[in-house]
Amino acid sequence: MVQKSVAGPEIERLIQLLTKLPGLGPRSARRAALHLIKKKEQLLVPLADAMGVAVSEIGICSICGTVDTSDPCTICADPKRDSSVLVVVEDVADLWALERAGAVKARYHVLGGTLSPLDGVGPEDLNLTALVDRCGSGDFSEVILAISATVEGQTTAHYIMDQLSPLGVNVTKLAHGVPVGGELDYLDEGTLAQALKARTQF
Amino acid sequence: MVQKSVAGPEIERLIQLLTKLPGLGPRSARRAALHLIKKKEQLLVPLADAMGVAVSEIGICSICGTVDTSDPCTICADPKRDSSVLVVVEDVADLWALERAGAVKARYHVLGGTLSPLDGVGPEDLNLTALVDRCGSGDFSEVILAISATVEGQTTAHYIMDQLSPLGVNVTKLAHGVPVGGELDYLDEGTLAQALKARTQF
Ligand SMILES: [Zn+2]
Ligand SMILES: [Zn+2]
Repeated sequence: MVQKSVAGPEIERLIQLLTKLPGLGPRSARRAALHLIKKKEQLLVPLADAMGVAVSEIGICSICGTVDTSDPCTICADPKRDSSVLVVVEDVADLWALERAGAVKARYHVLGGTLSPLDGVGPEDLNLTALVDRCGSGDFSEVILAISATVEGQTTAHYIMDQLSPLGVNVTKLAHGVPVGGELDYLDEGTLAQALKARTQF
Repeated sequence: MVQKSVAGPEIERLIQLLTKLPGLGPRSARRAALHLIKKKEQLLVPLADAMGVAVSEIGICSICGTVDTSDPCTICADPKRDSSVLVVVEDVADLWALERAGAVKARYHVLGGTLSPLDGVGPEDLNLTALVDRCGSGDFSEVILAISATVEGQTTAHYIMDQLSPLGVNVTKLAHGVPVGGELDYLDEGTLAQALKARTQF
């Protein structure tokens, strides 16, 4: 129980739901709830609205697997991007990180995780069939595996390599600017840009 | 700008609003937004609903100044509490902390801050007139100042003491179990309970 019932079940429910956000513990969730209630017009009302819009309008891109309010997503629909390069990422957060780095203006494919037999994540749990289909179309002259340098990430990269090699597509990986054991999303943008520039043959 | 436009303005707006919550920086706000979108049915929908309920139903208690869905609030309306003791706190977060400590089942008065001339917070910015009115009614045999041991908190306590002494009401303060310079809301519950038990004459 987050708190004793001194403020009605509605506030307790708000606090309990906020506690489920990454980065907010019970104490910071209480502070966040109170901040929201105090800043009702400036923050609570707009945030409730933005979440309502997210509920009704945000979905998964049927081509690349990222989240967006349109399908195909903004990136898949952008005619100015290089359609011959496909960047494969684990997660939407990694896609966002690469876009912030601004190092490549190409297409993406979001796997939705990494292979992890211990956690019961197998190939069928990732967005892999669609990746093989996209790569088999012959549209891409290069597929960049922008995957974390963790054990699971590298296992996933090797699995993808095995799937794609019969298709004769040129597969590259990020340069070893990525710290071993590090997660992509936590890297600064300069390191990400460097790692992308110095990518090597897989 | 939180991120480049790769996911539509609706997601960017959600991230920007989340950044305004205490405890969430730009990076954790992005992660929180993504978490919400991925857990649409389990988290985003219920949280959007809970915020909508908060917008329409939560207000300020006209007696004590706390936040609640009813007015008078749950505490002010509770007939089982000791109506002869009034606990004065700076903030709703402090009221919640004292309730979690469970050391006193009395009435509360929320000031809404502390006097801080440097920040332009004067007596008229706090919920002080109502406090003097409540104490002048003769209902309370004891007024406990449960205020932080900061410079501003102690200035505020002395100001209140000056206002209440003509009324002949018995004013006490928390024992020096509260660390000097510490804020109430960050204290563990045992320390809070001890400080309350060992309260001294103001
Ligand atoms: Zn897409
Ligand atoms: Zn009240």
